[in-house]
Amino acid sequence: MKVCIVGCGAIGSLFAAYLAQRDDVEVWAYDLDQAHVDAINASGLRLSGEGNVHSQPKASTNPADIPACDFGIVATKTLHTRAAIEATAGVFPDGAVCSVQNGVGNEEIIAEYVPRVIRGTTFPAGRIVEPGHVQQDTGGKTWMGPFEPQSASMEEIRQLADALTESGMETLAMEDSRGAQWTKLIFNASTNPIGALTRLPHGVACDQPKVRALISQLVAEGVAVAEAQGITLDSDPDALVDHAREVAYNHKASMLQDALAERRTEVAALNGGIVEFGRQYNVPTPMNEAIWALIEGLEHSWTLTG
Amino acid sequence: MKVCIVGCGAIGSLFAAYLAQRDDVEVWAYDLDQAHVDAINASGLRLSGEGNVHSQPKASTNPADIPACDFGIVATKTLHTRAAIEATAGVFPDGAVCSVQNGVGNEEIIAEYVPRVIRGTTFPAGRIVEPGHVQQDTGGKTWMGPFEPQSASMEEIRQLADALTESGMETLAMEDSRGAQWTKLIFNASTNPIGALTRLPHGVACDQPKVRALISQLVAEGVAVAEAQGITLDSDPDALVDHAREVAYNHKASMLQDALAERRTEVAALNGGIVEFGRQYNVPTPMNEAIWALIEGLEHSWTLTG
Repeated sequence: MKVCIVGCGAIGSLFAAYLAQRDDVEVWAYDLDQAHVDAINASGLRLSGEGNVHSQPKASTNPADIPACDFGIVATKTLHTRAAIEATAGVFPDGAVCSVQNGVGNEEIIAEYVPRVIRGTTFPAGRIVEPGHVQQDTGGKTWMGPFEPQSASMEEIRQLADALTESGMETLAMEDSRGAQWTKLIFNASTNPIGALTRLPHGVACDQPKVRALISQLVAEGVAVAEAQGITLDSDPDALVDHAREVAYNHKASMLQDALAERRTEVAALNGGIVEFGRQYNVPTPMNEAIWALIEGLEHSWTLTG
Repeated sequence: MKVCIVGCGAIGSLFAAYLAQRDDVEVWAYDLDQAHVDAINASGLRLSGEGNVHSQPKASTNPADIPACDFGIVATKTLHTRAAIEATAGVFPDGAVCSVQNGVGNEEIIAEYVPRVIRGTTFPAGRIVEPGHVQQDTGGKTWMGPFEPQSASMEEIRQLADALTESGMETLAMEDSRGAQWTKLIFNASTNPIGALTRLPHGVACDQPKVRALISQLVAEGVAVAEAQGITLDSDPDALVDHAREVAYNHKASMLQDALAERRTEVAALNGGIVEFGRQYNVPTPMNEAIWALIEGLEHSWTLTG
């Protein structure tokens, strides 16, 4: 089996490193970071922290170097989905490509470029420590299922999921992975931008009663949009908010980290995704729309001088 | 006539300086800034910019120094209304006290401490350049009218308004000044926190379609709360937003300046005021509530260390 990881940042590196431990899987990593690619080719990809892996995927910044692959795993930031899959589409003439990115809307873009698409959601998180070395901060499952309009077969989905599980990344192949995807989407869309706008760590934000109430309003809109689509959520996102308060009180949401670094955020795939699916299904999402507007405005401020 | 300016910051200094030009008005300025008070007593209060005034009010940080006054003009930030009027209540055993502060809710607090209250709204703005010297940035009118539950007489209101107008600060005495107050309130509540959250100057924020739509939603909620109270606005706050885009494109809202300096804001008297009057009159104000939550959260972040 040949697998190409499209976007080998922190998340992509987890998939690449675990999978490349297996003799029966040839793993290619596509990434634009030349130093990371060179380090991987020179001395392999190393995971520390939660993971303890040292394996040898092949890496390249040039899609022409990469042979035709059976599977793709897209792990770029959502901002770069189109550019990444446009560049690597030739790697998947008959491949099935899975998004493990945040938010919604990625599968729709990927489907424009490759024959078959898998809807994935992943919980593990990490960060690049130095080229070739990624710290895995949290473990957790990955879910994969059909992207209905243009899906891989369940057999293909199971094949990829099994390879991941056997390599140490627990992955569930499901007939419908939308519940996992929307549960994570709603949790992220209701907490990440709140962190970015208030600059509060997750638990501190939860302890502000007005802020906590706003989080619940955002959750409720997302749940309504999921229900309108007939999606059964894995769990109550509002309970996940409380759970995260317990286990990650001082965690600064990734969007808060983006804001502090003045990096464009994934708001369009999070709150923007909820708003756009809400429009399709006639479910009002005014709070998600307001939050989307505020984050977009904030992003715009970083482009101004003076 | 004896007048005590309660809070002699930028706005209070405008009132003190203009009024103290008159021989028939004895002006006292109460403020906690010892350097500003000392400078006023040593060499008078000077306005530059839009205003060109040099007059000699009496100033003190100690209310016990101030004789009983016929009128008070409260010009503190809304955060300090209660502390300021509590400290100076003894100056007004039979006085009529006017708030010229931002937002709503100040008159209610003042009425707990003094016999009669005047509802004021003022447009001029400025900033303290150095102790004893204030730059007046913009001119504009002041409106005064009854605070119905515990009002000064119209005769008193006219007396104070006329003294101000004759000293060079155009002030209109009105049977109902709520229209002016709520027009300014709604404009401020719909633009100030948007600036603080997005960090965009007013005109740039208006040019972001999603942000501009959010401003209109905030305005619409405020207008509905005003209507429910039977208040006739002076003008359409949404048109004021567009007008301000024309005349003050690069203006950073005062709340954005507060945010950049990590100073507590007046959000509770602005969006918080709209929310609380909305509750009294059963008008939903979810957007103002959300914005209030976000600004309060942001303020809280400035109190955290690390």
